[in-house]
Amino acid sequence: MAVKTRTKSTDREVLNRLAKLGEDVAAQIKRSRDPAVEIPVRSLANVRFDERRSIIELGDQTQARNFFNVGMAKKFMQTLLVAAGCKEFVESGKTTSLRDLYYRLKHTMTDSDENTFDEQEESDPIIEDLEVALDTLREELHLFASNKGAMVGNITLIDSGDTIDCRRQGSGGWSVPSIVEGNVIEFGKIDAAFVLFVEKDAVWRRLNEDKFWKKHACILIHGGGQPARGVRRLLWRFAVEAKLPVYVFVDNDPWGLYIYSVIKQGSINLAYESSRMAVPSARFIGLSTFDREAFDIPRDVCIRLNDEDRRRAKQILEYPWFQKKAWQKELTQMLRDDLKMELEALSTKRNISFMSDEYLPQKLKKKEWLD
Amino acid sequence: MAVKTRTKSTDREVLNRLAKLGEDVAAQIKRSRDPAVEIPVRSLANVRFDERRSIIELGDQTQARNFFNVGMAKKFMQTLLVAAGCKEFVESGKTTSLRDLYYRLKHTMTDSDENTFDEQEESDPIIEDLEVALDTLREELHLFASNKGAMVGNITLIDSGDTIDCRRQGSGGWSVPSIVEGNVIEFGKIDAAFVLFVEKDAVWRRLNEDKFWKKHACILIHGGGQPARGVRRLLWRFAVEAKLPVYVFVDNDPWGLYIYSVIKQGSINLAYESSRMAVPSARFIGLSTFDREAFDIPRDVCIRLNDEDRRRAKQILEYPWFQKKAWQKELTQMLRDDLKMELEALSTKRNISFMSDEYLPQKLKKKEWLD
Repeated sequence: MAVKTRTKSTDREVLNRLAKLGEDVAAQIKRSRDPAVEIPVRSLANVRFDERRSIIELGDQTQARNFFNVGMAKKFMQTLLVAAGCKEFVESGKTTSLRDLYYRLKHTMTDSDENTFDEQEESDPIIEDLEVALDTLREELHLFASNKGAMVGNITLIDSGDTIDCRRQGSGGWSVPSIVEGNVIEFGKIDAAFVLFVEKDAVWRRLNEDKFWKKHACILIHGGGQPARGVRRLLWRFAVEAKLPVYVFVDNDPWGLYIYSVIKQGSINLAYESSRMAVPSARFIGLSTFDREAFDIPRDVCIRLNDEDRRRAKQILEYPWFQKKAWQKELTQMLRDDLKMELEALSTKRNISFMSDEYLPQKLKKKEWLD
Repeated sequence: MAVKTRTKSTDREVLNRLAKLGEDVAAQIKRSRDPAVEIPVRSLANVRFDERRSIIELGDQTQARNFFNVGMAKKFMQTLLVAAGCKEFVESGKTTSLRDLYYRLKHTMTDSDENTFDEQEESDPIIEDLEVALDTLREELHLFASNKGAMVGNITLIDSGDTIDCRRQGSGGWSVPSIVEGNVIEFGKIDAAFVLFVEKDAVWRRLNEDKFWKKHACILIHGGGQPARGVRRLLWRFAVEAKLPVYVFVDNDPWGLYIYSVIKQGSINLAYESSRMAVPSARFIGLSTFDREAFDIPRDVCIRLNDEDRRRAKQILEYPWFQKKAWQKELTQMLRDDLKMELEALSTKRNISFMSDEYLPQKLKKKEWLD
């Protein structure tokens, strides 16, 4: 199956939106109005769970950011500076890091001791503002963060013109870049039945060494912990563009469940990006609290929950998207047992390839997942 | 140039050393002696700088770890457990993570409440002990840590049987695995004039996007900050096996200098591995304190040193391997200016590709490096 890439190039569209932002401000000035930009509110009060779409979304509240307002003037100026900076990058066809953007835009203003930005903590939120205001992902503004994660499996990619056969990427794999939009990364031949996302790179390495992806015709990807946006966006593209089932394989602890939750429904902090990052069809394949008994995992590799774990587990128990009976059972049992375990706990079994040879195949065959 | 891989397979050799460790202990027991293993001392007192080889090395002090000694019995047992575990991995031809090893070996001892290991912090130092005692790298014991770093450039690798042409690895690059020994990663065709190691992945991405490695026929690698052992060992192999010059490109701050120092001479903590990790020929290509003037870098992107920076800079000033005149000048000037700057500071120049188009080419052409 060859998948057609949906967003071949959105650069023009993004440039139009950036230009419109500037033109609107210019028009206000010409009409002698106090220039302002309208920014959607990104606080918890404006976040909700969309039951129908099954993702965390931003509401409709917006706030005007005015120039003639002592509390807003600096942020107004910063917003226009960041927009102008992004326009330059998109036009030049180059990408840059968040830190680079900060340095590019930082300077001392004429006839003053005032800097445009003093810390990167000032420019990052402005970028998020722009993402929401322009309905444009940071990646489409040509901005990148860290590379994190790696991938192997039954897929060919065209990355910046280079054909990358992920069936032949050795033990290292293809390093997942920060920007994986369709104009940079195109999908070539895919003969995978599903995608397996693994929380930890050490576990990913074991599965890769066992050629799990070959035996089970899948794509194997890790995020090195909480996955960066590049990995999340790639999972989204696999689910939406390539129509592949996505399985999430994480530690049996509240942090692992939170990683699953963010992949599936999005996060509260970045609610505005859920519609292009969240994968509501994602399935949780383990580790489940009930695996301890099912797979005869010895007690001495389990770890007692700490206060933070218990607090988080109770919080997750309340999330609207964890109200299904099976999830309530899972979470209640975790709290009752007061135990957690890491993926590596599966290695205590006789065979170090236990997860490749028995655990995952059985889970997949018997459809023992939660969603 | 095709480079012949030096260490095609050391598995047999490693198995012999592991077996000898066990046989020695068994022989002591048969002779009714208190069984002991001899472990080199890894404290600062046993670390010295070898002027001739220009690397940090471990001295000759060793310590016996006895079974019939209340303070040592547990560590003795742990040492033999770890050795037995590693033997199993090497024999099976599989690799595993440090965490996995910990879980594999952790169990409650018969008729007691005592665990073999309670925390990974107990098994990790034992692995280091074994590395030194057996003169064998952790990677040769089939143990891996995190994957960190990525690579592109004028080199072909054979990674676990897959041919990877690093000239065609797109924007992501080949993810550098934790184990890059010759029996896993072989060098194929190399048409590179040098290796450029970059501290930060964001800077690596810029240089990759600008196809710097293509224009200058080099290998471009980053370590995502302080490089993991995989990246260091690969740099070593490039320098020793492929005879390539290695340039190090780091922030202008004491941390960046420390990264350079570890790549070049090794670290005090892991002195025992210097002879197979340190690259004494590595050259520091920037950022230098004197670049501020040479490249007209504006003051407002420089950052004042903090107390920790000053303390570290003074420490580095005293390192025996930084006693060359040029280095003393560099470090003294940094302290005098009381300023540092990040690689991204170069982006404030007109052209965001300034470091690809001007800075690095000029440095290379004029041989403006320190070593």
